Parts: sequence; C-alpha cells; structure tokens
Amino acid sequence: MNKQWQIELEKIIKDKKRLLSNPADLLSYGFDGSFGQYQPERVVQPINREEVADIMKLANTFGVPVYPRGQATCLSGGPLPVRGGIVLDTCKMKDKLTIDSENLTATVSPGVITSKIKEAAEKEGFFYPPDPSSAHVSTIGGNVAENSGGPRGLKYGVTGNYVLGLEVVTPQGEIIRTGGQTIKNVTGYNLTQLLVGSEGTLGVITEVTLRLIPKPKSRVSLLVVFDDLVASGKAISGILSSGIMPSAMEIIDQHCINAVERHKPAGYPVDAAAILLIELDGHPKAIEEEMVEADRICREIGAREVQTASDEEDQKKLWEARKLVSPAIAKIKPTKISEDATVPRSKIPEMFERLSEIREKYNVELVVFGHAGDGNLHPNILTDKRDQEEMKRVEMAVSEIFESAIEVGGTLSGEHGIGTMKAPFMEKELGKIGLEMMRRVKEAWDPNDVMNPGKIFPQDGQTKLVLTE
Amino acid sequence: MNKQWQIELEKIIKDKKRLLSNPADLLSYGFDGSFGQYQPERVVQPINREEVADIMKLANTFGVPVYPRGQATCLSGGPLPVRGGIVLDTCKMKDKLTIDSENLTATVSPGVITSKIKEAAEKEGFFYPPDPSSAHVSTIGGNVAENSGGPRGLKYGVTGNYVLGLEVVTPQGEIIRTGGQTIKNVTGYNLTQLLVGSEGTLGVITEVTLRLIPKPKSRVSLLVVFDDLVASGKAISGILSSGIMPSAMEIIDQHCINAVERHKPAGYPVDAAAILLIELDGHPKAIEEEMVEADRICREIGAREVQTASDEEDQKKLWEARKLVSPAIAKIKPTKISEDATVPRSKIPEMFERLSEIREKYNVELVVFGHAGDGNLHPNILTDKRDQEEMKRVEMAVSEIFESAIEVGGTLSGEHGIGTMKAPFMEKELGKIGLEMMRRVKEAWDPNDVMNPGKIFPQDGQTKLVLTE
Repeated sequence: MNKQWQIELEKIIKDKKRLLSNPADLLSYGFDGSFGQYQPERVVQPINREEVADIMKLANTFGVPVYPRGQATCLSGGPLPVRGGIVLDTCKMKDKLTIDSENLTATVSPGVITSKIKEAAEKEGFFYPPDPSSAHVSTIGGNVAENSGGPRGLKYGVTGNYVLGLEVVTPQGEIIRTGGQTIKNVTGYNLTQLLVGSEGTLGVITEVTLRLIPKPKSRVSLLVVFDDLVASGKAISGILSSGIMPSAMEIIDQHCINAVERHKPAGYPVDAAAILLIELDGHPKAIEEEMVEADRICREIGAREVQTASDEEDQKKLWEARKLVSPAIAKIKPTKISEDATVPRSKIPEMFERLSEIREKYNVELVVFGHAGDGNLHPNILTDKRDQEEMKRVEMAVSEIFESAIEVGGTLSGEHGIGTMKAPFMEKELGKIGLEMMRRVKEAWDPNDVMNPGKIFPQDGQTKLVLTE
Repeated sequence: MNKQWQIELEKIIKDKKRLLSNPADLLSYGFDGSFGQYQPERVVQPINREEVADIMKLANTFGVPVYPRGQATCLSGGPLPVRGGIVLDTCKMKDKLTIDSENLTATVSPGVITSKIKEAAEKEGFFYPPDPSSAHVSTIGGNVAENSGGPRGLKYGVTGNYVLGLEVVTPQGEIIRTGGQTIKNVTGYNLTQLLVGSEGTLGVITEVTLRLIPKPKSRVSLLVVFDDLVASGKAISGILSSGIMPSAMEIIDQHCINAVERHKPAGYPVDAAAILLIELDGHPKAIEEEMVEADRICREIGAREVQTASDEEDQKKLWEARKLVSPAIAKIKPTKISEDATVPRSKIPEMFERLSEIREKYNVELVVFGHAGDGNLHPNILTDKRDQEEMKRVEMAVSEIFESAIEVGGTLSGEHGIGTMKAPFMEKELGKIGLEMMRRVKEAWDPNDVMNPGKIFPQDGQTKLVLTE
C-alpha cells in the first residue's frame, strides 16, 4: 500500500512517465560514479521550478529525504539515495540555454549538458572555461552543486568562478534567487557561492546564470616526457614561477600511460615515468614565446622529449587521449576508487613520494594522474569490491591518502566533493568547530533534514572509511 | 562606574594604550567614509587572534555589540558602532605579510595595508589585481569583509576572487580556518566566500590567504573623449563584444571632469560630455593590436579624440587623475553621498538616462563616474547635511537610484556593501524569503547578535532611507 506522501506526490506529478516506482527504475537511480548502491522509493522528473517547490514542500512536511541529481556522474556519492525517499532527477529541466552577448552571460536550465553551453558560447565567440572530464554527459546543475573542476582550474578557476546567480528551491520549498547578472555584487551574504559546491544539501538548483569570457585567440599544446616523476614535479614549478600561466597542465604517470596505450593507443611513450600535457592559450605571438620558454625550462630540468602541437587536429588527439585515462584504468580491475586529494603545488613531489609509499605499503594497484598545475591529483585505486581482504587494504590506503593530503597542507577534495566517502575525514581537516559552523548553516536552512541527508557531514562517531560490507 | 564587561575587558587587554575610553578617542572611532556618527563605549586594539577570541567570548557572554574595523574607509557604514559597545580595531594586527613564490599565494594579517601586499607581490614578479581606490590606506581585513572592488573587476574580479582561505574568530569566540592554500577546494560549504563580503557580521578576520597571479608583461592606457554620454556607453559594449578584455575601463562624466580640473588640473578636456579611461595589459604584441582595435572602435562610434599612453609615467598621470575624482567632487559641497549601484553592462546607457532624470527631478548635484566595464557606476550626490530641505530631496533621489538599479536587473551594491544605508532596500532586491535565508545564517552563527549588529538586515519595518535627523 502506498504511503500518504506517495499519494500526495502523484497529485504533484500527474504525468506517470515522470514519476517512477518500478523496481528496475529504482535500481537504476540507486548509484552514481562512486561506490555504493541504494534504493529510493520514488523517482521524480520535474519539468519546472513550481513542481520542484511542491515536491520540497511535501518532503518537508512528511520528513521524506529528497536526493537531487543530474546525470549522476558524481564521483563522491552526491546523488546517492542513502536513506531511500525520493530521487529528484533534474535532467528534464533543460529548455533554457540563452547567451547574452552584450553582458557576456549564459542563462541555463539545470538539466542542460555542460558541453552544450560551451558550444553555444563558442558560436558567439565566447568561452566557458570549466571543463570537467564528464562535460559531454554531465549537467550544469550537477556541476554547480559539486563545483566541478577539470584541467583548466589553474588559469581559469572552476565552475563556481563562473556562477553569477542562481534560482534555487529551498529545502522548505520556497523559490529564491541569489546573485544576479553582474560581476560585482555585494548585496548581503554570498548565497550563490554558499550554494555552489553544497552538493544538493541546501537546495535544488532550477536555473543558473554563468559568466562567459572572450574566446582566446589561439592555443598550442605540449607533450613533455620524463624518465623521473620528481623531475616532472619540478618542471611544473619551473614553468609557473617563470611567469607562464598555462590554461592546463596535466600529469599522467607510467601506470596510466600504459593503461591508455592498452585501451586505445594514443602514441604516449610507454616507458616514460610520467608525461606532462601542457596547454597554452592567448594571443598567437604570446603563446609562441611561451611555448619556446616552456620547452627550454622542461629540457633544462631533464625532460627526455618535448613534442609541440599547434594545429587543432593534433591537439585534439593529445587531449582526447588524456580523457581516456579514466576509462582506460577502469579496465585494470572491476572496482575503481577515484580520489581528488589536492595539495599546494609546491607539495606535489612530496605527495607523489607518499603515494608511492602507500602503494607499496598496502600492496594496492594505485595509479596517479591529474591536474598537476593546480595541485589537484587523482590517485585512483583499482580493485575488486568482492575481494573483502583486498578491500580492507584499499580502505587503509584511501584513509592514508586523505591524511597525507591534509598533512601537507592540502584538502580532502579539490573537485569531486565530500559526499558519503569523505565525510568521516571532515573533522580532521576542518576541526570540530569548523565543521560545526557548516552544520549550523545546514540546520538553519533545512531544519527537517530532508535535503540530500547523509552527505558531507559524518554520522555520529563516524571517523573511518568503510568499504567492506 | 564601569560596567562588569568593561572590567572584564581590562583583564583581556592589559596594555592601556590598546584599550581606549576617553571621549576624544571614542569620537574618532565613531564614523567611517559614509554618513552618520555614533559613539562606542570602548575601543580595543588587539594584537593577536587569542585576544580577539577572548573579546568575542566576553561580548557573547555579556551581550555587548562588537564592531570590527580596519581603517574605516568604508562607504556604507560597515564599521559604524550603531549600538555602542566595543569597536574592535584590527590595525595593530599587521605583523604577517608572506609571499609564497612556489604556490603563488600571500598570507597576511588583517591590518596590513592593501597596497603593501601589491608591492610585496610585485617585488617577486607577481600581481595582486584588486585595486580599490582606497588601497593605499585601507586594510586587507576591511577589503575582505566588504569584498572591495575597484577598476580591475572587469578582467580580474574583486577581492573575493583572490581569497583562498581565512582564519576567523566566530561571534562566539572560537577560532576557525576556512579554505586553504589550494585553488581547488570543495571540502564542505564554501565558508570562505560566505565570510567574504559579510561586512563583519559573521566573524572577525584574523588572517587571510590570497591567490596571486603572474605579473602581466606590459600595460598601455587610452584616454577617449566623447561629446555624448550615450556614445561612450556604446563604446564600452563595442570594445567588449570585439573580444578585447581591458584590465580596466572607467567612465568619468563632465561634472566629475570639471571637479578634477578645478581640484588639481590633470589635462582632462573640460568641455567633454564624458571620458573613458581604458587600460590594457598582457603580452606587448597582443596589447599593441588591441590598442589599435580599441582606437578604431571608439572613433567609429563617435569619439572626438583618442590619446594613448604607453610609457609608465604618462599612464601613472592618467590614473592618478582618476583617483582624484572622489576627493575632487567632495569639494563641491560639504556632504558627499557615494553610491555603487551596479547594472548589467548592456544597461549602462539606460542607467545614465535615468540618473540624469533623477538629477533634474530632485534638483540635486548628482555626478557620475565609475567602473563602466563591469557596470559598477558611482553616482555621487553632493549636498550639505545641515540643509534639511535639500536632504529630503537627496533621500528621494538616492532611493530612486536604488530602485532604478534593481529595475534594470542590477544590484544595490557592487562593491561598497550594504551597511546601514542600503539595508532598507534589501527586501526589494532579494525578496522576503531571500533575505530570510541570509538572516538564518546570521542567527545560526551569532545567536546573541553581538557581531556588528544593525548592519545589512533592515530593522523592523525599515523600508525607507532616512538621512535627516
């Protein structure tokens, strides 16, 4: 028999195609790109903010958890319905994608795929820099909720740096607008940036206003090959302290290089200890000079080889191969645990050393790639969740990765979010009071704890990662 | 006789030179760069975070209002001790100013003067872009609390865009750290950006970690003269939609030009309707091309004259004159009311028209300059607060400026903050619930309302500006 709230929900979403309850649907809305599988009681697909507001009012009244999600490419468990209830899928809210050429802004519905925004902007001569690897499948609503990053964080910042304003449905079902259309706005608290990266725990995003910038005139890419991982770390510092600000600077270690070459050969040198992929953008004359300078710096530090790619096709190939790293390493073993520990740039060589010790110590398949220019590494552990003994070791390895990042002055998460997996480590980074001040915001906004409950904040006494069942 | 909290305060700040209570001191800590004069009961000058924490614990226990301030150059009343209590002057906390060349960050005490950060960064080849006109006197703590802007917002953003982490004493006297040293950080809510621009109502800033960027290789400036204000607005759009992103683009109207020339002649053309001051920075080749292009666009739209300045001395002169606008217009009449209504760039011509109507309608001395490139205008009204009849008209004119900004899709404040003067208009821009969601944060963090009370949030029923006594 249906519960009262389920009956009420049918009055809000009358279109049966947008209110799902059969087991197959519930199953397919129970996971994301991270670890774990849960079962919601209902899945709804609202098409406008009024429906979202009505759903939240109902949820708030009946105390039913609501789990908002876009395409669920999330790597930290953000959309997981850990306490059942309602999954609120925003993918059908995708009718708006307006470029305002005079004000250099884009206004978009939350369900719009991020790469479509980029394309629309480029058609008008503009540039939307945030470029998470999932951009061709993930939604802008999800990107904003998780404050997605990607390779371009170094020079251009992350999603949040481009969000000027939001329309949001609060946990109690009220529709508010934050920020606006202007770059400068100090009218009261910055609720926009409070909501960005809040992982759907403070509201449901129903519209986003984004800042665009002029499209850079040209781009070049470099592939730099190193026989020594530490040297590659030094090259990163060397380039940045020379005054060059690459639009992207990625590192790929030997394990990842080999995985890519096995998966879909890209011509990466399989015997290299690491490669750096560097993108420079701007005025043609400027990047020509910078390219020569970067080449010189890398060779001086001990790069074995520097390849440059100026034409669009060659560059595309280089970067497409980079995007294959994640799917390629996923083939090594059935379970992939992807982290995003982020450290001050100067600590990259030290972090590499620590990661290699962790690999040895726990005998786990630990590989590393990531956005080296901004210190945002992606240590990935490839494992098999059915192997309970190995999972114990993985658990300890992951914990030690988190601890190492904090110890060298870094942070638990650079771009994936906290979700379920990193919640136990929050207090270690933020301290008791730091975490308490976040919790106060959550409680003030969502007194009945219905908005994506079970995320970010550790459950009572939860201070350890548990991956085994 | 001293109150109990005053006796306790003496136990925290034992150095009598840093705990002020004589009438002359209290008087001189009772105003800022805005309108109004109030009287605190005590002024304290803590020298470290522990003293700040103890002061806040005491204030929280006894329910005494605490008003943090830096150099009080604030134009919106942020530091005004509107309910008496304690003024907490952070100017003596200025021992730390560390540039980290490897991580491109600066870590600074709140009392450090902003221009000193810029100088220290430049010595190492880096650039700290935020450039409020008060930078040579205002403190970084105040800049962060108010999220100060300046001419460079267009290309480089405002103070908040450079704040990576904070150390803050909460309203209840706990010391927390937010953010960190990395560009990417999504570990829980973005408390850093919640605190930036919160005008000292959520905590006292005791340390700031700032992001630096490589210093642009070169700079040029253009002075563009227009016989028609609307044409100057069109030139702004024309330049931006051509793909050029100037590092600054300022507008100065005829009234302001004349005031500057009377104050300290800079060679600005006194018969022009408006002038644009444009700064381009980047690679020498790139800005050379952009300079030619900007010149062409401006002339095509009807500029009477375009002067270019490439050498450092000439540029310095141009921009120093720009910084004189505010002191120069202050000489017109004894009271200067400086606003910072900010509109979407495309609405600048419309806003200019409205401002000129307001000038006529209320017969007030209304002049305009500002950061035209990012829509952040500075309508200033010159008046005399002793003239009650004129003040009534000023009141109405200011209200109509606020309303106009909101009506064209802009915001009450681009960079000065809300403080006391704009609080009555908050609900008009944010809506009842939008404002309520801000208030919930304030109440959750500061349950006893001791942290800069009386700011941002309108008092009960307060919906109108009152400048007369």
